Order: sequence, then structure tokens, then C-alpha cells
Amino acid sequence: MAPVTNGRVLFNSIPENFPVPGQTTVYDESETIDLEDVPLNGGVLIKTLDLSIDPYLRGKMRDPSIKSYSPPFEIGKPLYGGGIGVILLHQQYFVLEQLSGLIIIQNPHKLAWSTFTGVLGMPGLTAFAGWREFAQAKKGETGVRDNWCGPSRILAWSFNSQLDGLKVIASAGSDEKVEFIKELGADVAFNYKTTSTENVLQKEGPLDIFWDNVGGDILDAALIAANTRARFIECGMISGYNTGHNGIKNIFQIVSKALSVLGNLVGLLASKYIEEFRLFTEPKVASGAIKHREDITQGLAKVGDAILAV
Amino acid sequence: MAPVTNGRVLFNSIPENFPVPGQTTVYDESETIDLEDVPLNGGVLIKTLDLSIDPYLRGKMRDPSIKSYSPPFEIGKPLYGGGIGVILLHQQYFVLEQLSGLIIIQNPHKLAWSTFTGVLGMPGLTAFAGWREFAQAKKGETGVRDNWCGPSRILAWSFNSQLDGLKVIASAGSDEKVEFIKELGADVAFNYKTTSTENVLQKEGPLDIFWDNVGGDILDAALIAANTRARFIECGMISGYNTGHNGIKNIFQIVSKALSVLGNLVGLLASKYIEEFRLFTEPKVASGAIKHREDITQGLAKVGDAILAV
Repeated sequence: MAPVTNGRVLFNSIPENFPVPGQTTVYDESETIDLEDVPLNGGVLIKTLDLSIDPYLRGKMRDPSIKSYSPPFEIGKPLYGGGIGVILLHQQYFVLEQLSGLIIIQNPHKLAWSTFTGVLGMPGLTAFAGWREFAQAKKGETGVRDNWCGPSRILAWSFNSQLDGLKVIASAGSDEKVEFIKELGADVAFNYKTTSTENVLQKEGPLDIFWDNVGGDILDAALIAANTRARFIECGMISGYNTGHNGIKNIFQIVSKALSVLGNLVGLLASKYIEEFRLFTEPKVASGAIKHREDITQGLAKVGDAILAV
Repeated sequence: MAPVTNGRVLFNSIPENFPVPGQTTVYDESETIDLEDVPLNGGVLIKTLDLSIDPYLRGKMRDPSIKSYSPPFEIGKPLYGGGIGVILLHQQYFVLEQLSGLIIIQNPHKLAWSTFTGVLGMPGLTAFAGWREFAQAKKGETGVRDNWCGPSRILAWSFNSQLDGLKVIASAGSDEKVEFIKELGADVAFNYKTTSTENVLQKEGPLDIFWDNVGGDILDAALIAANTRARFIECGMISGYNTGHNGIKNIFQIVSKALSVLGNLVGLLASKYIEEFRLFTEPKVASGAIKHREDITQGLAKVGDAILAV
């Protein structure tokens, strides 16, 4: 069998603010791979089925002199991230020599493989583990989620928050998503592009739990609207990923209200919660008790656009 | 017995930045009190012995429209705060009708009464309770204290941190205080007015525990120097009390290093830790195992100056 094309998305240059598909990342078909004659070096050959497109990928498109929790991408090398693949032993597409990061998915409920990059993957586990580790939710409290997007929304909010008996306030970036949030059972849902988050929090707060994916002005508003001893679960600050992080002005609220502001890195909590996560969520996703939506982009050539859309 | 003068320190105007003794606070002797004929209304008459002068008093000198954890002082009314007094029943100086805030001090070790406003008072308890609640210290870690001043320094650092086997880095605002810190056993001590905190933290870090009384640029530097999963115990941000809080620029470090940034309000932890605090510290202060220093100002007329000095 002749070598076949092995499409890759290469990191081409560091974005100044938003990534530019075709410029900061380029799709490349110059590499071929001979599937019958690949040196395995004790590893396995894997064919990629689904890739997870997540906000943290933007953080890896940085100047390598800047340290962060995840290593930077290398210019001229392929992007990489979480995904689902099938091991083809001696057959197809990339050789993994270091096997410690692999998880074998049993999939007893025969769910779509893409589910394991979303609601049952890293984003879902981020929400589940962060909630279990940090929320300390008490019945009757108020929880706020600042940008209800991505698969992780489902676990942290439509499920945990309702189980815990919270009043749920959540925002999203389109009226369609706001409707979906309401279906999931949010008590207050609004479009943060057309309604002031600050005003909603002033009216509906004080808040006891704040799940933050946005940071910036929204975080500043939430600090003002927080109750004494509120918990802020900091999962991301997407408002600053492309254009830089603004200074947080209301930081003294942490002292004056005895707040806990807690960084949630799934990598540090995964081993503690993954078993419980699988057992808890897989049957509920299979039965439809946990609702979720997927935004699927077909083809490696569209990876740059998918990252920009996130 | 004729009425006697009852000196008071009145809150006269809201400071624009630093308080101005004689202007924002004024010492007043216009009030007299007849010690043999005071209506007690079911309360007790107390003579003040020692008053505690603490940074939080500045926070109470604010526009009453601004909410915070402690109510604002009222213009034209006396300042108030923690202190030590003796109950004179029908005899001297102020009537307390609401008795719930009172603590009876047994003082079995016959310590100076002022000790109970300092190392054994609210500042000491703040340090003790905050450390027990939040530090999660592990042997071999590095702890940093950003402005080693006030009585609370003793408990949080010379004792707890050494018991817990930490490498201790601490700063103070004069060479004399730096010498004292070294006597207490700090591994690294420096004058933050003549040495860059950022450089010291870069060299001696990464830090696992940061005890913050200053906030501002020092907090920004500590966020950069923090280890993964470091705990920031936020006790105060004195850098902003008089001149306003600067925006914190490195806030994303909370996510990228999974930091815990924890507001420490002694009022919320006091009942949980006060018994343990008393039993642990009183004998050690009496024996000299816990070293401390007091900065005592004599006379109510000097209260404004004492607050400014803090």
C-alpha cells in the first residue's frame, strides 16, 4: 500500500489578538504516512476520530517565553489537544509512543464518540470536578454562570445546581442559547450582549457561587454582587485571551466579604473525580436526563475556523 | 461627686486619602459624665484601659453610601473599636447596654492588659484562625508574608510557619523590623522599601502560601511567583486603603495555576477558633516562646496620630 496523505493543522505564527485561520494556523497536506511501515517504537498507531476544540488552545498559541500551565505550541509543528481515536495497531495515522495519557473508553451505552470530547470529555469533567471540589452549594443559595456555552454547561448547571437546590442565574451570547438555558431550568436567563450583567446581578443577587469563564468586567461586577463567603470558581477568563486581561478593580471585595476565589484546572482534579464522573454522567446522557448540544465542524481543514469561533 | 470629663475621639470628616489628625478626627473633652448617676438601662458602665489601633479603622472612615463588611463611622460621633476595659458597675465612663460582644478575660498568666488587644487580641486571632482555616501548609513548602507588621505577625509566622516546617520569606518597612524578623527565625527577610519584592520572590520562590496585608503591586508580583495550587490568604490590602485600589493585572494566574485566593475575616472565624487560640497562645506568650512587640501610644488625644501611623 502506497503512503497516504496525513493532513495536519500547523501552528504558523503567534496571533496578535484573535487567531487568523490560514495565517496563524495553516492546514497542511504535505506529509504522507505509510500505514504498513511505520516505526512504532513500542507505541501504537492511532486514527483520529474527533477532536475537542477548547478555549485553552488559544493560550497555547503564545510566545514560548511566557510560562503557563500548559506548554506553548511550537511554530511549524501541528496543533494538538484532546480527542478520540481508534487504535489501529499497525495501521493508521499517528504513532503514540508515550501511552500514559490514554484513556480506554468502554462506551457501554453506545454513545456517539464525539460525546467523549464534550459533555463526557474534558469540558464535562472540568465542570463536574470543579463543582464537587469547590462549590459547597447549600440549598436556597444563588449560583451564577457567566457565559453558558460549551458542553460543560450541562453538568455544572442543569444538573448539579438543580440537584443542590440553587437559584440559577445564567447568561449566554444569543437569544437562541438563552432559550436553551431556560429549557435546562435556569431561574433567570439573559443575553449578556443585549442586557447588562451588572444590572441583572444587582437585581437578582447577592450571589453565593459564581462560575467564571469570562473574567474582566463581568468578574468585577460579580465581586460587587457577591454575598459574604461566596465561592468563585475560576475556569477561564476568555475575555482576555485574545486582547489581554484588564486589571480587576474590585479585588478588595475578596477581603471585605471573605470570598474564596478558586482556580479550577481539570488536570489537577481529573484522577480524583473521573470514576465518579463516568458513573454519574454516562447513564444520564444516554437516557437524556442530562441534555446537551454539540457544535460539530467536519474536516481538519476547518480547525482554524473552529478555534476562532470558540 | 461632680461630673468628670469623658474624653472622646470624634469622627469629623471623611479623609480624601490619608487621615489628618485634628481634621478628619478630633479629640474632644466637651462631654462630662456623672459616674454616680448614669442610667444603666440593664447594662454596665465600663472604663477603657487599652484600645486596639488597626488598619480596618480606616475602612470605617468612609462615605456611608459605600457598603463594606463593617459599618461606617458616623460624622460627629466617637470612633469605636476593639479594646480592653474594666467593668465598674455603677462607676465609670461608658454604658454598654448590649452585652453580647463582650468577652471576659480570665488572664491566668497575669499578662499586661494591652496584650489582649494585640498578640492575644483580634490581630493575633486573625492570624491564628486564618492560618488554621486556609494555609494547608505542608513541610518543605515556601510561605511569604508581605508586610510583617502589627502584632499578628507573631502567630501566623514565627510560630505556625515554623511548626509547619516552611521556608519563610518576609518583608518589613524598616531595617530594624527586618532584624526582628530574623530573630523570629525567617529564612529570608528584607526591607521592601529598599529591595524589590518582585526580585526576591522570583529568586526565592515559587511560593506556596502568601499571607497578604498589602495587595496592589505586591499581590501582582506574588501571583507571578506563585507555585501551582498556592494558597493566598487575603487579610488586607493596606496599599489601597488611603489612595484607592489599583487594578490587579495578573488575575489570570488564578486559573492557570489553580490558585486559591481566600478572604480572611476574623469575625467569621472567631467562634470556631477562639478557644483553641487562647489555650494554644496564652501560655506561650507568658513563657516567651511566642515573641511579640507592642507599639503603645498613651492618651486618647493621640488616637488620630496612632491611626495615621498604622
